[in-house]
Amino acid sequence: MENYFFGMDLGGTNVVIVLMDATGKMLARRSEPTKVSLGPASLVERTADACKTLLAECKIERSNVKGIGIGSPGPLSRSQGRLIKLGNLPGFDNFPLRPELSRRLAVPAVLDNDANAACWGEFWQGAGKNVRDMVMFTLGTGIGGGIVCDGTLIHGSDDNGAELGHLVIQMGGRLCTCGQHGCVEAYASATGTTARAQELLDAGRDSSLAQVYQNAGKLTAKDVFDHAQAGDALALEVVDGTAQALALTSVNMRHVTEPELVVLAGGMINAGDFLLNKVRESFHKQMWALRHESMEIVYATLGENAGAIGAAGLALYAFEHDQLYDAGT
Amino acid sequence: MENYFFGMDLGGTNVVIVLMDATGKMLARRSEPTKVSLGPASLVERTADACKTLLAECKIERSNVKGIGIGSPGPLSRSQGRLIKLGNLPGFDNFPLRPELSRRLAVPAVLDNDANAACWGEFWQGAGKNVRDMVMFTLGTGIGGGIVCDGTLIHGSDDNGAELGHLVIQMGGRLCTCGQHGCVEAYASATGTTARAQELLDAGRDSSLAQVYQNAGKLTAKDVFDHAQAGDALALEVVDGTAQALALTSVNMRHVTEPELVVLAGGMINAGDFLLNKVRESFHKQMWALRHESMEIVYATLGENAGAIGAAGLALYAFEHDQLYDAGT
Repeated sequence: MENYFFGMDLGGTNVVIVLMDATGKMLARRSEPTKVSLGPASLVERTADACKTLLAECKIERSNVKGIGIGSPGPLSRSQGRLIKLGNLPGFDNFPLRPELSRRLAVPAVLDNDANAACWGEFWQGAGKNVRDMVMFTLGTGIGGGIVCDGTLIHGSDDNGAELGHLVIQMGGRLCTCGQHGCVEAYASATGTTARAQELLDAGRDSSLAQVYQNAGKLTAKDVFDHAQAGDALALEVVDGTAQALALTSVNMRHVTEPELVVLAGGMINAGDFLLNKVRESFHKQMWALRHESMEIVYATLGENAGAIGAAGLALYAFEHDQLYDAGT
Repeated sequence: MENYFFGMDLGGTNVVIVLMDATGKMLARRSEPTKVSLGPASLVERTADACKTLLAECKIERSNVKGIGIGSPGPLSRSQGRLIKLGNLPGFDNFPLRPELSRRLAVPAVLDNDANAACWGEFWQGAGKNVRDMVMFTLGTGIGGGIVCDGTLIHGSDDNGAELGHLVIQMGGRLCTCGQHGCVEAYASATGTTARAQELLDAGRDSSLAQVYQNAGKLTAKDVFDHAQAGDALALEVVDGTAQALALTSVNMRHVTEPELVVLAGGMINAGDFLLNKVRESFHKQMWALRHESMEIVYATLGENAGAIGAAGLALYAFEHDQLYDAGT
């Protein structure tokens, strides 16, 4: 008798739910609007119904589902299965999502940070399939992180480890939204990248981006990458800064958990090889000379499903290690 | 019948050897001169004899010794039990220390990096006795690192993780001996601290250190700390820089493995509370504002025995996890 697992990735706009088998094969997938304004109880009801629909579609008995993994924006408490504070989901603060959903479905569950879930997804079924040690940076509005060390996800002593966007690479550097100065997120996230471009334009620098900026009142990271690829000097300077910051953070992580692989994920990897090659070059330029480091830097392969797939994978891992929380506890 | 473990800490000047029981009680200790010029075969012979002397002193049968742990300067290969390159021990490069000593003693063994061994010693029997997650910085000529994550030592994918002295905190900053720019080691090691003081003096800055520098031709870290405590402005500025760099690296590690505890070890902690309080203050000043971080920063408690005690502890851990290498393999 085969074992199956649900994976759920809770986002501000949509919830992605997948049904997977223990070999990592995705049997079915649904995306539900989060409808934040309806509140968390409604979300539990609707996602539980979606899970039942997936079972019906696949003709699988609920008793064969051994666990559900839930990925949510942090901070959260894994042991209590409770969300703590969610900027994008007002009304969800302190909601005990794991026990509520688990009870409703009558399926044991685990709750984890969404960046951790996405990292685990890439490790289990994506870019990191063939390694034991990897680090993932999710490049979006901010920068999320995940660390797999010798086949185990690093959570930290209080479930808030792997906040890799807040690694400081410049003492007294750019102010980050977190209150620190010099975080890699302040340089290399989509927000950090566009902010640096806009500041140079505000200072009167010449660039093909000036017209776009003037028309729209702001820039997107895509604008900056497009104009850099077209050869604009200012845009190139900004993209080089993004690549340098990501490469330096990769250097630092190589000196901490020494991953075999750094995986870059998130919207910004749409910039393609243009960005990836710059990060790789900058890594080797900034890395120490004591020995050759064979670490690879690659793009994620699972796209927007990484979080849900990884959440299912975390449920499988917890099942195998007797770490699932019983339904209703 | 009780189990016993040897721990050995190989240094450029001395080798410290301890005999411990499984509860962490040190039964006997010896320090042997390394006598590098006699070569590795002589070292194996003399340290094996020293181990036998410890057994005789304690009236313990060799068959009750379940393992020997060896801490050595890196880089090294744990799986092969082989030293790779040792700046302070010419003639020892590529020497298979673990199998040679293990065969000679007829005791199973493990080999690990000396900074890892010292970190494990503090975790097992010292400052980190009551935590599951800690990070250690050993502040000497360079800066060594060790990471314990959920009760397990982090080795990295190729045994060269936790090189925490080479975490970059300043893009394009001070040149480090490793070839990178901006490593914490280039700012906050004994060498980095004195170098920064000397540079300010060379630039003509006024200081009570000027006379010492002129007389001796160089400064020691102790000079800098002594004059800072006596109120010299330049020395204070330099010590503040050291504290800031150590605190920022602690901030960064809090965002990676999220230790409950950062332990500072090595010669520089002789500077006492004067330095420790500055590091603690700077940590809270530089840490993000998103939530209060209760991480503690303390000094190591085992002194120069940490490495040998930790090596014995690593042998115990390997014994319990069936990871010891049989004598002669």
